[in-house]
Amino acid sequence: MATPFILINLKTYTEGFGHNAQKIAQSAERIAHENDVRIGLAPGYMDIHPLNVHYSLPVFAQHVDAVSPGAHTGHIVAEAVKAAGATGTLINHSERRLTLADVESAHTMARAAGLETVICTNNVATSGAAAFFSPDYIAIEPPELIGSGVSVSKADPEIIERSVEAVRSVRETVKVLTGAGISTGECVKTALDLGTDGVLLASGVVKAKDPEAVLRDLVSKI
Amino acid sequence: MATPFILINLKTYTEGFGHNAQKIAQSAERIAHENDVRIGLAPGYMDIHPLNVHYSLPVFAQHVDAVSPGAHTGHIVAEAVKAAGATGTLINHSERRLTLADVESAHTMARAAGLETVICTNNVATSGAAAFFSPDYIAIEPPELIGSGVSVSKADPEIIERSVEAVRSVRETVKVLTGAGISTGECVKTALDLGTDGVLLASGVVKAKDPEAVLRDLVSKI
Amino acid sequence: MATPFILINLKTYTEGFGHNAQKIAQSAERIAHENDVRIGLAPGYMDIHPLNVHYSLPVFAQHVDAVSPGAHTGHIVAEAVKAAGATGTLINHSERRLTLADVESAHTMARAAGLETVICTNNVATSGAAAFFSPDYIAIEPPELIGSGVSVSKADPEIIERSVEAVRSVRETVKVLTGAGISTGECVKTALDLGTDGVLLASGVVKAKDPEAVLRDLVSKI
Amino acid sequence: MATPFILINLKTYTEGFGHNAQKIAQSAERIAHENDVRIGLAPGYMDIHPLNVHYSLPVFAQHVDAVSPGAHTGHIVAEAVKAAGATGTLINHSERRLTLADVESAHTMARAAGLETVICTNNVATSGAAAFFSPDYIAIEPPELIGSGVSVSKADPEIIERSVEAVRSVRETVKVLTGAGISTGECVKTALDLGTDGVLLASGVVKAKDPEAVLRDLVSKI
Repeated sequence: MATPFILINLKTYTEGFGHNAQKIAQSAERIAHENDVRIGLAPGYMDIHPLNVHYSLPVFAQHVDAVSPGAHTGHIVAEAVKAAGATGTLINHSERRLTLADVESAHTMARAAGLETVICTNNVATSGAAAFFSPDYIAIEPPELIGSGVSVSKADPEIIERSVEAVRSVRETVKVLTGAGISTGECVKTALDLGTDGVLLASGVVKAKDPEAVLRDLVSKI
Repeated sequence: MATPFILINLKTYTEGFGHNAQKIAQSAERIAHENDVRIGLAPGYMDIHPLNVHYSLPVFAQHVDAVSPGAHTGHIVAEAVKAAGATGTLINHSERRLTLADVESAHTMARAAGLETVICTNNVATSGAAAFFSPDYIAIEPPELIGSGVSVSKADPEIIERSVEAVRSVRETVKVLTGAGISTGECVKTALDLGTDGVLLASGVVKAKDPEAVLRDLVSKI
Repeated sequence: MATPFILINLKTYTEGFGHNAQKIAQSAERIAHENDVRIGLAPGYMDIHPLNVHYSLPVFAQHVDAVSPGAHTGHIVAEAVKAAGATGTLINHSERRLTLADVESAHTMARAAGLETVICTNNVATSGAAAFFSPDYIAIEPPELIGSGVSVSKADPEIIERSVEAVRSVRETVKVLTGAGISTGECVKTALDLGTDGVLLASGVVKAKDPEAVLRDLVSKI
Repeated sequence: MATPFILINLKTYTEGFGHNAQKIAQSAERIAHENDVRIGLAPGYMDIHPLNVHYSLPVFAQHVDAVSPGAHTGHIVAEAVKAAGATGTLINHSERRLTLADVESAHTMARAAGLETVICTNNVATSGAAAFFSPDYIAIEPPELIGSGVSVSKADPEIIERSVEAVRSVRETVKVLTGAGISTGECVKTALDLGTDGVLLASGVVKAKDPEAVLRDLVSKI
């Protein structure tokens, strides 16, 4: 199996922008280095450039719009995200949904700009559909688990397994992330055992008292 | 092959609501009856009930929202569309895009309400993705052809053929409509020859001086 | 003072469409007639035409889009709403928000089509802003009260009073409806005492076991 | 009169992000310094931090969302914009419209975060409405002029004059920017003569062969 991928979404938490983002980046860089896992951060747009300059970590945008460079005030263009140093981008996160047409178009633009792509989906059917676009990753976020504090392994492992099956039935090589219900190393282990290639998580790390300790625990059972 | 399906989208054209909708319905009913083809109308919401009461034609909503009955002022609930007498509904028309999650959810709700489903898509990739939801029809509307007056057969038959292939590669039984570039019986013939099961068109009929003559021409080469 | 206006929003409640809408309309017509108050209904789009044909009541659309007749599949055009028999329309309901530009444009189009206009707002500041468009009514729906079951008089009468002031400071003649926190005749009385010209309510009537009894109570203290 | 304000919106033009943004900032800083006018830049989000670090210029965000810090992946939080060093923000640009409720809420949040606010509007009525929120500036962008290359003075000076009147009738102290139809120093002079306090422009500078020459011309008649 390829190196598991742990992607931390900093959202727009106070604990996740500016100086706080830098502290989390520092911890993530250290733990990724020590444990030979891949840990990425998805900070707010304003922190993409400074995190990229100061840390050696894959930095992901939280979203890109389905627009090319041009007259699109306030929008996020894949090329500008790349120019700021990002490695990849989330697309269609549950808090930033796109139309079907725009998921496809934003994905195509992100790829053309040289970004790795993580398309977020909410259930088995949308996972299978999004797989048709051949992203690098599909991150499944079952609505029942988002921010619930319930572990994916306890709650409904079946939705993850069936989503992996749906994705693979459409495109064999698309990787899958477990996108909700992750807070401990035990959860990460379950996610990998269910056939996914890593995890996408947010509050479990960002809002923790000691993010570094949580990161250390997350990678402990891999 | 099954009976070809000709679905006329009345949009919100002045020529397509109220009394004008009734005149088009009358013509469509007559020509469908005389020629043994299936002609459906997708009128504005307010005309679903009267058209259904007065004519013997499949009536489609132009859109349904991904919401259940409840506190959703101004939205379109599949069950209410069904209660008004509709046979089916368009979903995700190019002028009324939905998020990927909502396409799936609106489709599931429309099915549960007993509506036939036509999901509109804009290219090969989104056609393949939407096929994963197993709608009754995928209507492909290549943006280059929408309202262009250019016939699909002249412009780019390949996008239709490749979309049909994409749909069938995901779900063998999903039918496909050619959703743009249709104005004459010759275009309808081309659409069927390209492997689609019918057509979705609008202005060619609705804004015609003599809609009945256009309808008569549309079915003439089937 | 002008006759108070009681506007019942049927939303997309199961209890508010099709046959259920007709029953509420029948009750509302009877009680309005007996008590010399003005009671209007805002049903789903599909019920505008049948309610208008069968009952003698002002019928309001729940929403209109900021588009003219044309290629706008799935949208709500003011002229089509008028053609279906509506008297007026809600604009910018809390469940169907419009951009600032579209509130203004939809309002202008509704007026041009001959519809009475009720612009919904959420606080003092947006009430003052919307008043600048000179609608017939501003309906204030403080988010704290929407669907809360708490009476406006108990909760926060001040937000209503200050909104009335804000509206009148911009446009003296714009009428105001209390748009949340209304379930009894006592609430209606409070709403009128606070300087508003009527009420906009929904679940209190629509989801009641006996809507006619609730309507009778609502008008009892006027 | 206060120092006129020239605000350059870099949009998502290729000529306006990354290194190109830095070159424009360098020119703008020099010309502002030499001429004692206030020149601000509104770059893409990723360039807010580097421009703020390297240049002594007011930097504006192109948009903020109506959300507080929290679980809002992909959104723009006023506090994070401020933390990145921004001086102010555009709100409701014609390419990034917000609902009426969100214009008010985003404005309130931007103010609370200590940002200067520029609310964009499209006509006389929306200018008057937005003035009720007491922003620092209203930037009027008549749709007829946006990106048209037509000078505001030639096209329709009246819409600017009437918008200024509308704004002042609601809030005496709100300043106004002419937000379209500006490409030369002559246009800037006209804008000031019409009673506005500055200009908002984009392509005229950003897509110019020699942005510094354009900037020099823009300030030449003040």
